[in-house]
Amino acid sequence: ALAELIAAEFEYLALSGKTVFITAGPTREPLDPVRFISNHSSGKMGYALAQAAIDAGARVKLISGPVNLTAPERVECIQVETAEEMLTASLEGINSCDLFIGAAAVADYRPVAVAEHKIKKGNEEIMELRLVKNPDIIASVAALSQRPFTVGFAAETHDLLSYARSKLERKKLDLIIANDVSVPGIGFNSDDNRVTLVSASGEVPLPQTSKRLLARQLIEHIAQHFNQQMAANEKTTG
Amino acid sequence: ALAELIAAEFEYLALSGKTVFITAGPTREPLDPVRFISNHSSGKMGYALAQAAIDAGARVKLISGPVNLTAPERVECIQVETAEEMLTASLEGINSCDLFIGAAAVADYRPVAVAEHKIKKGNEEIMELRLVKNPDIIASVAALSQRPFTVGFAAETHDLLSYARSKLERKKLDLIIANDVSVPGIGFNSDDNRVTLVSASGEVPLPQTSKRLLARQLIEHIAQHFNQQMAANEKTTG
Repeated sequence: ALAELIAAEFEYLALSGKTVFITAGPTREPLDPVRFISNHSSGKMGYALAQAAIDAGARVKLISGPVNLTAPERVECIQVETAEEMLTASLEGINSCDLFIGAAAVADYRPVAVAEHKIKKGNEEIMELRLVKNPDIIASVAALSQRPFTVGFAAETHDLLSYARSKLERKKLDLIIANDVSVPGIGFNSDDNRVTLVSASGEVPLPQTSKRLLARQLIEHIAQHFNQQMAANEKTTG
Repeated sequence: ALAELIAAEFEYLALSGKTVFITAGPTREPLDPVRFISNHSSGKMGYALAQAAIDAGARVKLISGPVNLTAPERVECIQVETAEEMLTASLEGINSCDLFIGAAAVADYRPVAVAEHKIKKGNEEIMELRLVKNPDIIASVAALSQRPFTVGFAAETHDLLSYARSKLERKKLDLIIANDVSVPGIGFNSDDNRVTLVSASGEVPLPQTSKRLLARQLIEHIAQHFNQQMAANEKTTG
């Protein structure tokens, strides 16, 4: 009943007829058949955004790393493990995508070589692991000539807003959702979150709330920015 | 009702009055506040052994890495993240421990340094990660002068039995439960498992079954080995 009340607060279906791609969760980068590098992302924020986008009338493709969550109804969910798999799934059908939201915590680096067999513990006290940079999924999407409206996340433990703004500019994103993962009780693996929206036009801090409610507010804000940009584009090209 | 039928099959409470420590799940070795190295262990086998040991009349301390499982009732569950934390929790009160079962998939190596802040993605295509060997928990337990009966696992992708036997001898364990994690549908993250018991006296293959039923068989076998050793010790020292 609460969900319906909140849904009713949407004045109109802000994303009706739009296609939204959302990445969520961590990626896992294998060292061998049993070991991997990963991170603490729970996927809760991305899954909540998928639900909110569905409720706002969008068609949603959710590209998800390994998490313990069930995809919302009516969402097309593609399960992936590695950053490379997530990139491939993100680019598939991207021409039909109006908004791309990169909520996944993609591993920056992966082991250079993946051992076919489980690596045996040797006698060496010290081991060097060679890592190679992963593809930058959101920057790859934002660099397309026919690009969707592209929204990123910046999860930082310090200097949050300056990092977020530099990420916005460097990766040519339309919007960044910045959150401080050093604060206990919000961010990674928490049910609550508190974020600041960073765009070319300024910064909008949102109050701390559950990821579910925050996702609805974010989808409203994202839809507003998206629709403004659409209107502006029509003016210049029309 | 099935659980009660199976419990009734225990001819007697094989571990009545005994204290059993069981490690379970993976460990997570942090690189920084958000990233870590881990492995695919689900903890299901260790948790099933904890339940079976409780049902066999034991007092059970379960030392668990991060998993998505609820500890069985009447089990004392200690939650840990890293191998070092798991070692500390394993040695605490070890003098009261009669049987130690190392079912955790402990990370062999951990990053030498844990960054206080999230490591920023640099421009380098290649990154070297320096790892240092973790303490060997089960070997540390088996090396104690007043040691419990010590049972290890060998999860291998090839040459299973020869690795298991060499692990038994090198770490001075009493029993090894060997399972081939390269076979789909058994081992890591599966509900089923198929193992071979390896001890100084020989090898006993057990048929493939659910981890829950297998755990009951394993606890029976372990208790038999343990009681034989107790009887032999009394003969020599008595």
